[in-house]
Amino acid sequence: MPVTTKTVPVVENILKANDHLAQANRDLLDRTDTVAVNFMASPGAGKTTLIVRTIQALKGQYRIAGVDGDIATTLDADRMAETGVHAVQINTGGACHLDAVMLQNALAQIDLERTDLLIIENVGNLICPASFQLGAHLNVLIASVPEGDDKPYKYPTMYRGVQAVILNKIDLLPHFDFDMDYFRRGVEALNPGLSFFPLSAKTGEGLDAWFQWLIWQVDGFLDRKT
Amino acid sequence: MPVTTKTVPVVENILKANDHLAQANRDLLDRTDTVAVNFMASPGAGKTTLIVRTIQALKGQYRIAGVDGDIATTLDADRMAETGVHAVQINTGGACHLDAVMLQNALAQIDLERTDLLIIENVGNLICPASFQLGAHLNVLIASVPEGDDKPYKYPTMYRGVQAVILNKIDLLPHFDFDMDYFRRGVEALNPGLSFFPLSAKTGEGLDAWFQWLIWQVDGFLDRKT
Repeated sequence: MPVTTKTVPVVENILKANDHLAQANRDLLDRTDTVAVNFMASPGAGKTTLIVRTIQALKGQYRIAGVDGDIATTLDADRMAETGVHAVQINTGGACHLDAVMLQNALAQIDLERTDLLIIENVGNLICPASFQLGAHLNVLIASVPEGDDKPYKYPTMYRGVQAVILNKIDLLPHFDFDMDYFRRGVEALNPGLSFFPLSAKTGEGLDAWFQWLIWQVDGFLDRKT
Repeated sequence: MPVTTKTVPVVENILKANDHLAQANRDLLDRTDTVAVNFMASPGAGKTTLIVRTIQALKGQYRIAGVDGDIATTLDADRMAETGVHAVQINTGGACHLDAVMLQNALAQIDLERTDLLIIENVGNLICPASFQLGAHLNVLIASVPEGDDKPYKYPTMYRGVQAVILNKIDLLPHFDFDMDYFRRGVEALNPGLSFFPLSAKTGEGLDAWFQWLIWQVDGFLDRKT
């Protein structure tokens, strides 16, 4: 199996180089008192809608900027920009995740000294983004009811590497056979004590608890700096 | 950017080696008169449910076997096996797609001489599987209403490389702002004249047209052999 043995060391090198650059990103963010939150999700989980609602709720309190990762188009960064914040689109040109180099290039286009909160929307993917650290302070996974209650079991790496799980589209629970206990047991087994926010970005149900947690986290990082 | 320049040639080598093995898989399938269909989709699009319905509808007509790819668990292969067909689970252990080597190993565990139709369920991912040919005769993308109508625009590679697009969960259209014309225009721009099947694997609406198309395709491949 020459293909497999050849790729392993190269992948390790890439991940090591990425971790190194992620730490550089984090140092830069810390120096400028900017808290970065990396949102990851499957395609169509509602990342952009939730991010737009979150920006609208918090933009009176923090100076916010956004970075959006997609294979193609600027559809999502356009939606972020409509909230009035500065948004940078990264088109990965086929790559299934953002990496630390891409974020480094995006950070160069943002006035970090005047940014308290940086919202990063990763490429829609439940697998690849988990392997590539960006240097963000918080990693948040947005799951959604239509994806089904078995996703923690089938995509464990993604659920292990985050500080919070949001379950979006709970307004659709009546239309799906979604076993909330089964879902939560799966999350809890992978990531015990994880913060969990069932909500609907569409109807607004559950959003306040999520906003409060995020504010508490962001203030915690900012206080440690001052 | 040493990371980027280093990875490019290696990725090309892997893809070339993969294409070579995919052709070997295809030759083996052709020699045994087995038609292989590779189903790809985002996590939670309803791949397994649709596959189970398809097996149930066609198993009186063809001798069917299944291969299921997942990061972890045998949840999906178990569901396939419940229909009475022989099912092989591939756990990729983190990889975001099946590749031709994985399928080659799975084919060795199937009695291809007694299999007319091989159903392959790829890893839930809208990006990676598009780059790795397996040697299947047909590649089918299962989209779903909750993912949103903008997915052809944001994941063009996946939509370009398939012979049919299924739009699953149309029973949920009343609950979503899903613009069918916008979706179809996106598909048509990427893959003109593509076969398109809006359906609900849950309610059964639209399934017959999909079954008829699949039977027509499978018979076409089998006839060419005899």
